[in-house]
Amino acid sequence: MKTKLSPFALASMLSVQLFAAEDKPPADDWKPCPSNQASKQYPQYNSEGRVKFRIVAPEAKSVGCTFRDSSEFKKGEDGAWYGHTRPLDEGFHYYMIKIDGAEVPDPNSHYFYGASRWGSAVEIPAKDADFYALKNVPHGQLREVYYFSKSSDKTRHIYVYTPPDYDKDATKRYPALYLQHGGGEDETGWGRQGHAGLIMDNLIAEGKAKPFIIVMENGGVSGPRPTNAPPAGAGPGGRGAFNFSAFEKVVTQDLIPYIDANFRTLSDQPNRAMAGLSMGGMQTRGIAPSHLDKFSHIGVFSGGSIAVTNITDMPKFKEMVKLVFVSYGSSELGTNRVGGRGFGGDPKANTAALKEAGINAVFYESPNTGHEWLAWRRSLYQFAPLLFKD
Amino acid sequence: MKTKLSPFALASMLSVQLFAAEDKPPADDWKPCPSNQASKQYPQYNSEGRVKFRIVAPEAKSVGCTFRDSSEFKKGEDGAWYGHTRPLDEGFHYYMIKIDGAEVPDPNSHYFYGASRWGSAVEIPAKDADFYALKNVPHGQLREVYYFSKSSDKTRHIYVYTPPDYDKDATKRYPALYLQHGGGEDETGWGRQGHAGLIMDNLIAEGKAKPFIIVMENGGVSGPRPTNAPPAGAGPGGRGAFNFSAFEKVVTQDLIPYIDANFRTLSDQPNRAMAGLSMGGMQTRGIAPSHLDKFSHIGVFSGGSIAVTNITDMPKFKEMVKLVFVSYGSSELGTNRVGGRGFGGDPKANTAALKEAGINAVFYESPNTGHEWLAWRRSLYQFAPLLFKD
Repeated sequence: MKTKLSPFALASMLSVQLFAAEDKPPADDWKPCPSNQASKQYPQYNSEGRVKFRIVAPEAKSVGCTFRDSSEFKKGEDGAWYGHTRPLDEGFHYYMIKIDGAEVPDPNSHYFYGASRWGSAVEIPAKDADFYALKNVPHGQLREVYYFSKSSDKTRHIYVYTPPDYDKDATKRYPALYLQHGGGEDETGWGRQGHAGLIMDNLIAEGKAKPFIIVMENGGVSGPRPTNAPPAGAGPGGRGAFNFSAFEKVVTQDLIPYIDANFRTLSDQPNRAMAGLSMGGMQTRGIAPSHLDKFSHIGVFSGGSIAVTNITDMPKFKEMVKLVFVSYGSSELGTNRVGGRGFGGDPKANTAALKEAGINAVFYESPNTGHEWLAWRRSLYQFAPLLFKD
Repeated sequence: MKTKLSPFALASMLSVQLFAAEDKPPADDWKPCPSNQASKQYPQYNSEGRVKFRIVAPEAKSVGCTFRDSSEFKKGEDGAWYGHTRPLDEGFHYYMIKIDGAEVPDPNSHYFYGASRWGSAVEIPAKDADFYALKNVPHGQLREVYYFSKSSDKTRHIYVYTPPDYDKDATKRYPALYLQHGGGEDETGWGRQGHAGLIMDNLIAEGKAKPFIIVMENGGVSGPRPTNAPPAGAGPGGRGAFNFSAFEKVVTQDLIPYIDANFRTLSDQPNRAMAGLSMGGMQTRGIAPSHLDKFSHIGVFSGGSIAVTNITDMPKFKEMVKLVFVSYGSSELGTNRVGGRGFGGDPKANTAALKEAGINAVFYESPNTGHEWLAWRRSLYQFAPLLFKD
């Protein structure tokens, strides 16, 4: 009897092994995602980071989701459709459900503004989720505010986080951080999926960050806004609607004066910061260095970096800028990834060069995350304690 | 030749006429609904109050919506499905889209919490929509607030409206209205679909209402709330989760003390009101009259009324209660409707009897509305100017 395997047999064995690996049932330790609507048991996540969906669609021919490499959705014993994703990174992921070719929000999830639309997202709780958990500590307020912008000739919609003790002492004044969302997102992002308020509440409760105000603008200028639109997040979020120089005017001519007149800010340059994620990081790099009379602290999360060669007046930059903070999700870095590919060079090397040039420059890499909100929540968590130090 | 018609011919003619009436194409003056997501052209409404949907579902066998008596949905020339509703009342209506038996949110609409879930709604602008329009007037703030409730042993999520000048003068104090949503809704309702902030901003700008604070609680006590839930509207909204006496404790023992300690309220009885819609009106009738040391003004919108026979201590009620305001949508009234059927008698007659008994009682009927938000926005618009008069 021959022991040598024919090439066909080998291929067949490999294929069986591959099939077995793929066919291994997912770990059966499913729990409802914290991003679900109250009392909804699905979607669920497991210890492998897979997400399982349950969709009631009795007469559908096919059901699926927008996560690539998901399992086939099949009808369960209860007649509902079930399917699961590949293992995903911990954190927050936008998605939609597909029913016979229609892309629709999952009726079980909460809805968030991202990818230029309100739609579904799942949260797979991170191992370090405690830093953005809702705790019984003093809480700040997330305030929905309308203000009139002369330069864009319209009433604009923003959120302002005020720290826990803001209303206790009417004489106390606070520094302010202007914090921008990413492309396809809007002014609801940082307060909602970003948990900026909870992150700050927890940092302040532990004495790790100075209390400050956070201002969250839409960042889009040219998009139309219907009268009687719902109060939250109706503005334009797509990158198409963004006009960087128009937004620069909004920030410097309208928004900062409005905030300084209507909130108890410390309104001098040492007490004002700007930061943003992805497109918001690009806006920050575009606006803050050109207005060093206004901003002393700069944060760029997954949105490129600042190269020494791009600083036209280094002595002034050194004198005025108290912090340049640059961060990326770990899997964004590398030659073929977002962090390495564009944005004018390697962000880590650029930031190290800034430091060598005598600037307080900090690089942070969020472990095991890509271009998503867990990386940006962590970036805020790392960035906030470095701000407005005496 | 006979001129007399046979019964069959008559029936046939009638049927043709009926068919013709039903088959008349809807008025072709469609406009995008203001409840759409930014830049979405559908749903649209027309001058008859019909709403037209456009759903992309290439492989679906059938598409529809949850509005009864809607037209059949058919594929248009662009391959998308189109269908429209019967003429609806002006105002705000919850709905879902049906795709091959699945009930899902419309990917084109904004999402609102109602019917115990986040889902779609359409707004057909009312002829009097100006009173809740976003205008270039001084705006108050809608604040998202967490507070710890000892009686329910959890951190609870509320919205607080502060009037336009609240932050201008740190010594000024304001009356407060505790304002409740309906069954299957949550604390997001009044600020979002209710436009409570815009209604107050406009009333205050015109000098028609005194500025006051509005506090919006979830009203549900027993429902669980996941840690790391998204900040907005994650609480229980279904009537099943509500425990009226537990909520009474939350309001009187936790919420009022929290608000009085953390906002600049006038904290005496003449400066505190309670109101609510539907189930929130029932909560108001249940709580306010039992705590006349705390509340002086009572508003019940589409939630029953207060009968003279239900007042146990009339002299005290007369002394303490400065206003009882009762309202209904016009089509709720009548013997077989909500307003007439339950809630202990005819609300209009009950309110007239209160007035005859010497109480400042006001009945308001919202024209051409049913049990929905246009009636309740108008109710707030009528109620607010009557509050906290010197």
